Amino acid sequence: MSPPLRIGLAGLGTVGAGVVRLLEANAALVASRAGRAIAVSAVSARDRSRERGVDLAAFAWEDDAGRLATRADVDVVVELVGGADGPALTLARETLSAGRPLVTANKAMLAHHGLELASLSDETGASLRFEAAVAGGIPVIKGLREGAAANHLASVHGILNGTCNYILTRMAAEGLEFADVLEDAQRLGFAEADPSFDIDGIDAAHKLAILASLAFGARPDFPAVAVEGIRGVALVDIREAARLGHEIRLVGRAQRLGDALAQSVTPCLVPRPHPLAAVVGPLNAVVAEGDFVGRLTFTGRGAGAGPTASAVVADLIAIARGEAGPAFSMPAAQLAALPPAPAAARSGRFYIRLQVLDRPGVLADLTASLRDAGVSIESLVQPAPNPDGTALVVMVTHESAEPSVRGAVAAMARLEAVAGAPLLMPILPLEE
Amino acid sequence: MSPPLRIGLAGLGTVGAGVVRLLEANAALVASRAGRAIAVSAVSARDRSRERGVDLAAFAWEDDAGRLATRADVDVVVELVGGADGPALTLARETLSAGRPLVTANKAMLAHHGLELASLSDETGASLRFEAAVAGGIPVIKGLREGAAANHLASVHGILNGTCNYILTRMAAEGLEFADVLEDAQRLGFAEADPSFDIDGIDAAHKLAILASLAFGARPDFPAVAVEGIRGVALVDIREAARLGHEIRLVGRAQRLGDALAQSVTPCLVPRPHPLAAVVGPLNAVVAEGDFVGRLTFTGRGAGAGPTASAVVADLIAIARGEAGPAFSMPAAQLAALPPAPAAARSGRFYIRLQVLDRPGVLADLTASLRDAGVSIESLVQPAPNPDGTALVVMVTHESAEPSVRGAVAAMARLEAVAGAPLLMPILPLEE
Repeated sequence: MSPPLRIGLAGLGTVGAGVVRLLEANAALVASRAGRAIAVSAVSARDRSRERGVDLAAFAWEDDAGRLATRADVDVVVELVGGADGPALTLARETLSAGRPLVTANKAMLAHHGLELASLSDETGASLRFEAAVAGGIPVIKGLREGAAANHLASVHGILNGTCNYILTRMAAEGLEFADVLEDAQRLGFAEADPSFDIDGIDAAHKLAILASLAFGARPDFPAVAVEGIRGVALVDIREAARLGHEIRLVGRAQRLGDALAQSVTPCLVPRPHPLAAVVGPLNAVVAEGDFVGRLTFTGRGAGAGPTASAVVADLIAIARGEAGPAFSMPAAQLAALPPAPAAARSGRFYIRLQVLDRPGVLADLTASLRDAGVSIESLVQPAPNPDGTALVVMVTHESAEPSVRGAVAAMARLEAVAGAPLLMPILPLEE
Repeated sequence: MSPPLRIGLAGLGTVGAGVVRLLEANAALVASRAGRAIAVSAVSARDRSRERGVDLAAFAWEDDAGRLATRADVDVVVELVGGADGPALTLARETLSAGRPLVTANKAMLAHHGLELASLSDETGASLRFEAAVAGGIPVIKGLREGAAANHLASVHGILNGTCNYILTRMAAEGLEFADVLEDAQRLGFAEADPSFDIDGIDAAHKLAILASLAFGARPDFPAVAVEGIRGVALVDIREAARLGHEIRLVGRAQRLGDALAQSVTPCLVPRPHPLAAVVGPLNAVVAEGDFVGRLTFTGRGAGAGPTASAVVADLIAIARGEAGPAFSMPAAQLAALPPAPAAARSGRFYIRLQVLDRPGVLADLTASLRDAGVSIESLVQPAPNPDGTALVVMVTHESAEPSVRGAVAAMARLEAVAGAPLLMPILPLEE
C-alpha cells in the first residue's frame, strides 16, 4: 500500500472536529477505498485550548494556518476556516500555488473567487475539490461534475439551505408564524444567533452560484444571483399556497436562457408532485434536468458535522486515488462568461399576496394595475375581512414576463389602500 | 488536448444507438469535460443491416465482438450485448485481460461474475466501470462508490425495476388489476413481451447484488438474494396498504446484520413518508443510510436509451480523465465474503392477506396459526364477504422473526378454509 495521505486541517469547528472523528472511526474503511491511509498530521485553529471532543495530541499545531500550505509533512490542505476572503482565501491561494491539493467546504469563497482558484488549480495541477460546499453530505458536486457530465443541462433547482427549509416546513406543519419558528430554531441550534446569512438567502445563493457553474460550464458568478430570503413569508401564504396545491420552499434556480444564465434564490410555490415539495425539515435536495439523462434528484442532509465530514473525506479519498479532474468540470479557461439573463427573459406564473383596506374599489384598483402592465389573472381570492378592517387578497397570474409582474406589484404597493409590502413569489412549473 | 479516446462498441440496440447519438450530439461538451474527444472507432452487433436511426458508416464493423478487445484502434470497449454469460462475458474477459478498460451496462454479468471481472481488472490495471448497470442514468454507483465512500452503510434500499414500479403505481392510480396493466405496459413498450425477468424480480436482484457489493465492501453474491416478484400483488392489496398509510413497491433491500448480509427483492409495504413511497411510474430510486452522512436518496430515470447512454458516457469521461478506482470501491481481494444472513436474523412487521371461505371458526384457525408460531397481531381486518362466499382477511403483525411469520402463513395455507395462496409482504420501517 502507498504511504499515507497526510492532511493539514485548518479550522476545528463542528465540521473540522467531525473530519477528525470520521478519519479515526472509519480509518480502515477509508484506507481500503482510498488505496492508502488518510491521516491528519497538522491542524490549525484560532483557539488551541478550546474543548472539541476530539484528541488533538497526535497532531502538530500551527497558530498560523497559512503554514499548512508549505509544511513538509502535509500532502493536502483541508480548509474549514470559512469566510469569502481573509485567512481562508490566503490559505487557498498559497496551497494551490504551492501545487498542493485543496479540499474546502467554503461556499462563500468559491462563489466569489471560484474562477481564480480554479485557474490556479489548472496552472499548478493541484486538485481543488469542494463536495462539502454544497448540500452537505449529498454528493451533488460529483453528481453534476461527473454523474451528469455527458449532458447539457436545461436547469438546476435546489433546496440549498436547511435552516430556511426547517423554518418553512415547521410553519406549515404547526401553523406557526415565521418569527416564532425562527426563535425556536435558534434555541434548538437549527439557526444561528445572527440568522441573516441563512434566512436572507445569501448562503443558498453562494451554493447556487457553484452549482450553476458546474451545470452550465460557466464561470461562478455570485453577483448575478437575484436573492430574496424568507422573512416576508407569512403563515397565511403557506395556507394559501396549500389551497392551491403547493408548498412554499426557498428555491435556488439556475436556467440557461439562450446565451444567458438566469440565477435566483427566492421563496417559490412548488407544486406538490414536484420533487422539491417533498423535501422537509433540514434536508437539502437538488434537481437537475439533462438532455439525455432527464431529471435527476439528489436528497439528503445538507449540513451538520457528520454529513459535511463525509463529503470532505470523499474528496480526500478521490485525491488519494489520484482522481483530480478540473474543479468546475472543465478547465477554468474554458468556462463561459455567460451574461446574466435580462429580467425580460424571465417569465412564469406568480403568486401575489396583499393586505388591503376593506373598502369599495380596491379590487378594481389592483386589477387595473395588472391590466396596465399587461398581466392577466388566473385566480383572485379575497377571504373574509379581518376585524381590524383590513383584508387579504391573493392573486395568481397567468404566464407573464417577470418585469411586467414586478411593475404591477410596485404600482399596487403605491395604492393608498394597500397596507404593508405585497409579497411576490414565482410558481415553479412541474417540469422545465 | 490529448488524442481522442477511441471506443469499440459492442451491441447496437436501443442503448448502443443512444451512446452513438449522445457522443455525436454532445461531442464538444463531452470533450471539455473529458479533456479529450471521445469517438467511436469500431462497432459490432448481430445484424449489420438493421435500421437503428444512427449513421454507422464512419465506424469499422466487426462481426465478431471479441475482436474489439484487441483492435489497435480501440482504447476502451463498451459492452452492451447483455446476458450473464456467452459473448458478453467472453468479450469482458478478453478486454480486461488485454489491459483495456471496459464499460458495461450488463447487470446480469456483474451480478454473476463481478468478482472475477473485478479481480481481472485489478490484475491488469484496466478499469472496469458500470454506472449504467444499475438505475439507468442515476449516478448511484458513483454515489455509493465515491460519494458515500467514507461511510459504513447500515442499509441500501432501492426501487430498481421501472417496469414493476410502473405497473404497481398504475394499478394504484387507476384501480386496475395486475394482468390488465401488464398487458397495457407491454403494448406501450414499458414491459417486454416476455416480462418475467422484470416482474419476477430477477432484474432488480441483479442490480441489488451490485449495490450491496459496493455498499458493504462485499463480494457480489447474486445467489444469496431472496427474490419474489409482483405477480401475487392484487389491487385489493394496494387498497388495503393505502388504508394502512402505505404504498406497495418492489424493493431491493440489503442490510448488514452482524457479520452477515441480508439481501432481498420483494414487494413491500412502504410507509408514505418514506422516500421510496414517492417514487412513481418508471422512475428508480436508491436510499442509502451511512454512519456519518445519514440518509441519501438518489432518484431518476432507471432505463431508456437517453439515461443509460448518459451513464455509459459518464464512465467514458472518467476513463478519459484517467480516473480508475477499483470496480467495487476497493480491490477485489479485499472484498469480504459475507455469509447470507440466516433467515432467523431477519425480522420486521408483516402484511398477510388471505382469501378464506366465509364460515364460522376460520378466524380462530388463522389466529391460532399465528399464536402457535409465536407471532402477535397488530391488526386484523375482514371486510364484508364476497357474493361467492369467500372473504378477505388482512392482518398486520407486530415485529416478529421472519421464519416464524413464514411458518404461520404456511400453516394457514394448509387450512381447508383458505382459498388460494396467501400473500406475505414485509412492511418497511420508516428508518433503519
